[in-house]
Amino acid sequence: RKLDKNVQENLYFDSYSDVTIHEEMIADHVRTNTYRTAILRNSDAIRDRVVLDVGAGTGVLSVFCAQAGARKVYAVEACSIAEQAVKIVRQNKMDDRIEVIRGAVETVELPERVDVIVSEWMGYALLHESMLNSVLFARDKWLKPGGLMLPCKAELYISPINDLVVEDRLNFWRTVKDQYGVDMSPMCDFAKGCIVNGDIAVTLVTVEDVLSHPCKLAELDLHAVTTEQLRSVRGSFACECFGAAAVNALCVWFTVSFPCGDGEEGGRPLVLSTSPFKPETHWKQAVLYLDAPRDVVQDTRVAGEVHLYPSEESARHVCIHVECAIGEHKKQCKTFSIPD
Amino acid sequence: RKLDKNVQENLYFDSYSDVTIHEEMIADHVRTNTYRTAILRNSDAIRDRVVLDVGAGTGVLSVFCAQAGARKVYAVEACSIAEQAVKIVRQNKMDDRIEVIRGAVETVELPERVDVIVSEWMGYALLHESMLNSVLFARDKWLKPGGLMLPCKAELYISPINDLVVEDRLNFWRTVKDQYGVDMSPMCDFAKGCIVNGDIAVTLVTVEDVLSHPCKLAELDLHAVTTEQLRSVRGSFACECFGAAAVNALCVWFTVSFPCGDGEEGGRPLVLSTSPFKPETHWKQAVLYLDAPRDVVQDTRVAGEVHLYPSEESARHVCIHVECAIGEHKKQCKTFSIPD
Repeated sequence: RKLDKNVQENLYFDSYSDVTIHEEMIADHVRTNTYRTAILRNSDAIRDRVVLDVGAGTGVLSVFCAQAGARKVYAVEACSIAEQAVKIVRQNKMDDRIEVIRGAVETVELPERVDVIVSEWMGYALLHESMLNSVLFARDKWLKPGGLMLPCKAELYISPINDLVVEDRLNFWRTVKDQYGVDMSPMCDFAKGCIVNGDIAVTLVTVEDVLSHPCKLAELDLHAVTTEQLRSVRGSFACECFGAAAVNALCVWFTVSFPCGDGEEGGRPLVLSTSPFKPETHWKQAVLYLDAPRDVVQDTRVAGEVHLYPSEESARHVCIHVECAIGEHKKQCKTFSIPD
Repeated sequence: RKLDKNVQENLYFDSYSDVTIHEEMIADHVRTNTYRTAILRNSDAIRDRVVLDVGAGTGVLSVFCAQAGARKVYAVEACSIAEQAVKIVRQNKMDDRIEVIRGAVETVELPERVDVIVSEWMGYALLHESMLNSVLFARDKWLKPGGLMLPCKAELYISPINDLVVEDRLNFWRTVKDQYGVDMSPMCDFAKGCIVNGDIAVTLVTVEDVLSHPCKLAELDLHAVTTEQLRSVRGSFACECFGAAAVNALCVWFTVSFPCGDGEEGGRPLVLSTSPFKPETHWKQAVLYLDAPRDVVQDTRVAGEVHLYPSEESARHVCIHVECAIGEHKKQCKTFSIPD
């Protein structure tokens, strides 16, 4: 199904016209509180300066920037939620400092260049339906030399996991005979074909299911990375398993980091993490089910290559190609994407 | 968005090609166990007779009928899940008695008329995406005079409720100021417009939220009802509230009944209920949010008319038009449908 670009853009922006997604984002305490802390901690760089908020949504990050002392905040938002941002800015008596501009950041005109760009652009698996291309466009067009990016760095991680939910679901069909006297075990293969497919499953991974320390796949310096580089993000990984288990999936997640600001916290950068080892966020984790689960023992090596790139059908859809070798087993390859 | 009929049918049948929906249906103990009990209890009428299973899915009801002694079961299924039914029938060594026929019941040819029709045809709010029209078609074409329908009766119920989830969601926006120092109260109106819309919400209603005894809206005799009558199902209701509360929605649910069979249970018909007062099922309840919530006290009368009819855009989509008067307040009218 290949949609023309206008339809794609409308579907994308439409999904932000419903309150549910904004409620989920604001209620995500890890997300909202980390951005708030990062903005306030960088108030030395923000005070009396000009900020651009790319994809401002309800405008909450713009209000944080005004609270941090910004002289002017341009809150650019393409979707109709911009109308709510206008009301919220007025309600907070900040309409002298925050200007909500409705439009795509690629086409709007600002009266001046900016000192800081703030944006919450991350999608599932970091790059799905992400606005990062728009943020980089804005950076190249509107950010002054030496200006500040909030966040300034993104990192992708991976670990092998044993996903118990999928094991339970496949096993379910063997339990029907005991309960209802009908042998439904032929459904196991069918269920496997439906569940262990090429979809990226966005789901909360239980920390007990994670079978190794996190392994860093890739790092994006948001001051330097180009849209050209985003068309193909590659990384390799190698990790050792904690102990005996069956690897049936890989789990991918991301972090973004903010500059340490005035260094009150000893100069440590502030990190927004979507790791299964950290408190949950609305991004959950991205789970990639392997066609051939493999048993591992302590120190079994799981290694491979990962390639993230935009789908040919829709540039906002991320695809993930994985090549993965578990212990002495033959390498397996599989391509995943997020279903509509 | 008006889809042509072929696309609609393909989308409808496609949704049954995934394992998830079959897993949900088989794992719904109320559903599966009530059908199993009803079939076994009617074994006097099934033994050595011929059964038609309309929309057989994985074929589990056909196997129950064979276990109840049927001489022959025709398991008609239009979707590719029929291939799994074939395997399950063979696994249970019933391929001599159960014949899986892939096709729409409107077009398949059976070698004989049948004594019994069994079907699990109910959708959300009873009639959404339902197969009842197909079951009635099969009844008129293939059921012998005096034959048995399983189930034989369907009933629709309604009660006023106070839905706390929607109250919490609307109130959320007033809590943001305390947590993050940003007054987001202008979002309340926007949230109300998004949440209290014309969608039928399929959700589990907590029994504490139900504000009156169930009130019966309509009853369908499945031996007699016609597809013509299904194009417009009307009912009225009047109930008295238990006590002081705010009515912000109406809750609609259904039951289906099976003949009492050999009467071991004193001749009481067996009822599959999706009532909020009964154990939950995968049908949950259908919740209709009112535009104007009203406070009630004990014995306040809530009364009105309900009209269920197929959507003009898609005959498989049910619409519900409600006219409802709460106490002395002016009558409110609203039309609901289930979103895609």
